[in-house]
Amino acid sequence: MFRKAEDAATAGVLALLLEVSGTPKAGNVDRDHNFPDLRFEHFLASASAVYPVFLKAAKEEGSIGKLVLEAVETSMAWHKAKNVHFGCFMLLIPLIRCWKAGDICNAVIEELKRTSVEDSLSVLKAFRTSEARVMEVEDLSLTAEETEQKLVEQNINLYEWLLHSPKENIVAMELINGYRISFKGRDVLLDFFTEHEDINLAIVYTYHYLLSEHLDPLIIAKHGLKVAEEVRDRAKEVLNEFEMSFNIEILRSFDEELLSRNINPGSIADLTASSIYLALREGLRF
Amino acid sequence: MFRKAEDAATAGVLALLLEVSGTPKAGNVDRDHNFPDLRFEHFLASASAVYPVFLKAAKEEGSIGKLVLEAVETSMAWHKAKNVHFGCFMLLIPLIRCWKAGDICNAVIEELKRTSVEDSLSVLKAFRTSEARVMEVEDLSLTAEETEQKLVEQNINLYEWLLHSPKENIVAMELINGYRISFKGRDVLLDFFTEHEDINLAIVYTYHYLLSEHLDPLIIAKHGLKVAEEVRDRAKEVLNEFEMSFNIEILRSFDEELLSRNINPGSIADLTASSIYLALREGLRF
Repeated sequence: MFRKAEDAATAGVLALLLEVSGTPKAGNVDRDHNFPDLRFEHFLASASAVYPVFLKAAKEEGSIGKLVLEAVETSMAWHKAKNVHFGCFMLLIPLIRCWKAGDICNAVIEELKRTSVEDSLSVLKAFRTSEARVMEVEDLSLTAEETEQKLVEQNINLYEWLLHSPKENIVAMELINGYRISFKGRDVLLDFFTEHEDINLAIVYTYHYLLSEHLDPLIIAKHGLKVAEEVRDRAKEVLNEFEMSFNIEILRSFDEELLSRNINPGSIADLTASSIYLALREGLRF
Repeated sequence: MFRKAEDAATAGVLALLLEVSGTPKAGNVDRDHNFPDLRFEHFLASASAVYPVFLKAAKEEGSIGKLVLEAVETSMAWHKAKNVHFGCFMLLIPLIRCWKAGDICNAVIEELKRTSVEDSLSVLKAFRTSEARVMEVEDLSLTAEETEQKLVEQNINLYEWLLHSPKENIVAMELINGYRISFKGRDVLLDFFTEHEDINLAIVYTYHYLLSEHLDPLIIAKHGLKVAEEVRDRAKEVLNEFEMSFNIEILRSFDEELLSRNINPGSIADLTASSIYLALREGLRF
């Protein structure tokens, strides 16, 4: 547990930095891999810039949806990329806002229930401003033009809107299901770090563990369900092989495999960041 | 110029992150090089943690020496290394405190003159807490046991104490001479980035430019003046060679050369961070 609001905000920023620095992370930006329009340094700028918004969240100033929009707008003033941290902000801001709660899962759900349609509209704007990607859905899609009108007409707050998400949207599921995946990720991270005392390797291991257990919705959106399942199964094989030798080259070649196929498990990276945050909350220091 | 205190603090944190990430940086920690007791991740933790102290500085809450001590103590609560950012904090905190000033050099000097002996004692404590290294000097040395007593007896404030520094202490010289080196570093960085549009390369170039122009006091302290001069002259040669081809392997092999000789130009890295901060203040975005 943190002692003060500043600590919760610091842990949020540090979680973002540790996640993006973790290398190799199959298919994603890390300290050794830039994409043409998304560089490691964009993540540094976004993470640095978002501290005051995280601090507002920790001080319970502003509701979740509005804070997500403020986070996107504040961070985008410091870099020229498009979406850097939309998914991470969606996961971290509720956690930071409820840092004081004993039962953080329940507190996040209560907080989400207290949001209004304004929060839904703010998240929609944040999504569009950052040009984030998501899976297409039939009703109340983030990309559909009429969604804004429907949200207003039916007065749908953020919690109700999240309930409309497809079950494959693991970021939305985390929010309404009490961060089950992130808590498991936290435990995997803490156990690995306790045993091996290498913070980078612990993060990399956690990322691949999550990749081996869950389907990434961004892979489904871009490459279809079959490819997403194949990536999950390959991650399991790779992780088993890695556990026999702890030879990082095994992970590196998996990374190259996914990069060459343009497969980027972005939501798994987001869940890695929330796992790291929860580990820092639990007292992880290195 | 920044529009608000939060922006000055963000720029301070981002300068720290961009500096340590810049790779290759001959002889120093970067995203691809850890030392046994000092890892890249320690710098991420220290930079994340220091935001609230930078924000206090920007809001003119607290005097420079006390803020330096608070920065060291706050950042050390988030990592298990010893000195990570002492030199950077000495350079950045006065700049952040005076972010509103038109003439920042003069404003920093005026602010330093307003400090008291308490600030001197705070800096002494920050130095000792972080176990930073410096050049040995005869009078009022950071490492001498009687320094504390002398500072109190003679009521020496931070400005007066800095005036006692040897001219080789380029961090102290920056503070009392209006950041001449950092302003030049800023211009080198902005020019290079304008031409090449690669933020990592611009930082790496700036670092090696500063290394080719100035003697690093930490090299003098550890290896003597001759080695420091040799490193400066080698940096000049290497930089000339690099400018003909922009082949990063040239810098990589210089990095390996210094690392193998255990030569770590830490003060040049500090000045690179203050150069980046000034470039961000000038509007650098990437």
